[in-house]
Amino acid sequence: MPLSEFALIERYFRTRGAQRADVRLGVGDDAALLQVPPGCELVAATDTLVAGVHFPPGSPPASIGHRALAVNLSDLAAMGARPAWALLALTLPEADEAWLGEFATGLSDLARAHEVSLVGGDTTRGPLCITVQLLGHVPAGEALRRGGGRAGDVLFVSGTCGDAAAGLAIEQGQLAAPPDARDYLRERFLFPTPRVALGERLRGFASACIDVSDGLLADAGKLASASHVGAELAYADLPLSEPLPAALGERRARELALGGGDDYELCFAVPPQNIARLLAQLPPQEWRYTRIGVLRAAPGAVVVSDGTVMEFSHSGYEHFL
Amino acid sequence: MPLSEFALIERYFRTRGAQRADVRLGVGDDAALLQVPPGCELVAATDTLVAGVHFPPGSPPASIGHRALAVNLSDLAAMGARPAWALLALTLPEADEAWLGEFATGLSDLARAHEVSLVGGDTTRGPLCITVQLLGHVPAGEALRRGGGRAGDVLFVSGTCGDAAAGLAIEQGQLAAPPDARDYLRERFLFPTPRVALGERLRGFASACIDVSDGLLADAGKLASASHVGAELAYADLPLSEPLPAALGERRARELALGGGDDYELCFAVPPQNIARLLAQLPPQEWRYTRIGVLRAAPGAVVVSDGTVMEFSHSGYEHFL
Repeated sequence: MPLSEFALIERYFRTRGAQRADVRLGVGDDAALLQVPPGCELVAATDTLVAGVHFPPGSPPASIGHRALAVNLSDLAAMGARPAWALLALTLPEADEAWLGEFATGLSDLARAHEVSLVGGDTTRGPLCITVQLLGHVPAGEALRRGGGRAGDVLFVSGTCGDAAAGLAIEQGQLAAPPDARDYLRERFLFPTPRVALGERLRGFASACIDVSDGLLADAGKLASASHVGAELAYADLPLSEPLPAALGERRARELALGGGDDYELCFAVPPQNIARLLAQLPPQEWRYTRIGVLRAAPGAVVVSDGTVMEFSHSGYEHFL
Repeated sequence: MPLSEFALIERYFRTRGAQRADVRLGVGDDAALLQVPPGCELVAATDTLVAGVHFPPGSPPASIGHRALAVNLSDLAAMGARPAWALLALTLPEADEAWLGEFATGLSDLARAHEVSLVGGDTTRGPLCITVQLLGHVPAGEALRRGGGRAGDVLFVSGTCGDAAAGLAIEQGQLAAPPDARDYLRERFLFPTPRVALGERLRGFASACIDVSDGLLADAGKLASASHVGAELAYADLPLSEPLPAALGERRARELALGGGDDYELCFAVPPQNIARLLAQLPPQEWRYTRIGVLRAAPGAVVVSDGTVMEFSHSGYEHFL
């Protein structure tokens, strides 16, 4: 590797994130020194992206950098936390400066957009693997958790679902789509938008929250399970983008909305007594979220259409007879 | 992978680190919630171990787990910080439960010894790669940095140097040694001891500190460079274990003490006015550190023997004529 670890980190990352006054010491010493605001808890998440597992080999480097941070931003959003500082552990087969430059741009553009400072990291030679650790804070005791929901709480999801899975299928050459739909869906996979501002605003409204990384039905099920209840989703209410059914047809679009991963939307539960205040203070048209179902006492996560529970079979979701 | 990510983390790591009251929420949600003590700064480090780069393929899994945490503990020790919480990003080619069990034991035994709680992580399938993020805290403004040294400050190093490099050479079959020396040196590579307690106690004595991961001369040079001074090390004063010269001979032992990596000792500078207090309050016999040189105005890091500067050539360190 022609550039030393230190030179790599220095050149590409040191000054490319946000500059923050609460960074007492950033990249360049044995560790970073950071100031958590008084009255706040520290929030910490880490996620790894591996080539061929989390993105197709040959993905645009800017997308890889963006997604490495975005998946962690989404985790903090799901806690209602404000992100602040990131550390990057980058394992690279070779120091390709063009690749690194684009990767750094993808990561640091998103970092600056969320006022996240890059405060440390480690660069090693090996198979391509990117681990980002994201740190942030939340007022003590106010974080959103998966396990706070109760039967009767209303379930919402932000944005639209299934787009990223369709975008990945397009990237992998497994799905053809009209040009406009194609561009939109690819972008949703390559450059997902973590819902950080919405997550922060949901404190005081939501009883539970999770980010949708593994698919809406699976993640709503995890929220329900952590809350010791079940989840009932309405098939007709799943929020779809226009391009998704344009590319896939309505039925397959709804299947991807339930089962497709990588959307990084927020799924959250709101107690009935908070609904009116939520809708008034965070208008759904502006904040882009949709009612998709309810938490209920019976365990498990189910999808309901016309009053009957649907079941997933090899051919997709079907009415359960 | 027969076990899901969640089950893996649950089974091997959830309850195996220390239990801490300041962990408001640990493994199992989108992020961890942690309480930094009032008046303290947060300290954050991350280091990656890659198979074939940082350890020989086939290393004992307990050693890999131990070292993945130890290298980060050493970074926090160099800041004078107290470690508290770790996150683990583990990329594995397959879920070998025997391997995982030993890896987890190596990591969690060391975590408990330092009262570190495992609060989160991510498990992915891919080439073996371990990234640990370690978080801790230090009273605000009191952290040790690399850049605080001045000309005239005395340089010390903890423990003995060169042992781990010899141990690695033994592991790789490149060095034969008498059985006792062999066992000792291998242990020093496989299970290094981060000097966490010493680092914390050095606050208020040391002007600068760094951990010795790349070799004593290189790391003393980094400390000096960050402090805008130079370093002069005394060849005769390098602390050697008994087994190292027994395995290598005196001359090669001193070369490894200067150039060998992976010792994870602390190299620190102490202003002359603090020396008497240091020696009285942290007796060197008890705390195991040795005076090895001084910081000086002239830049660079040099080794001096009998009043002459030595130079490293292809045959090792030589007197410079």
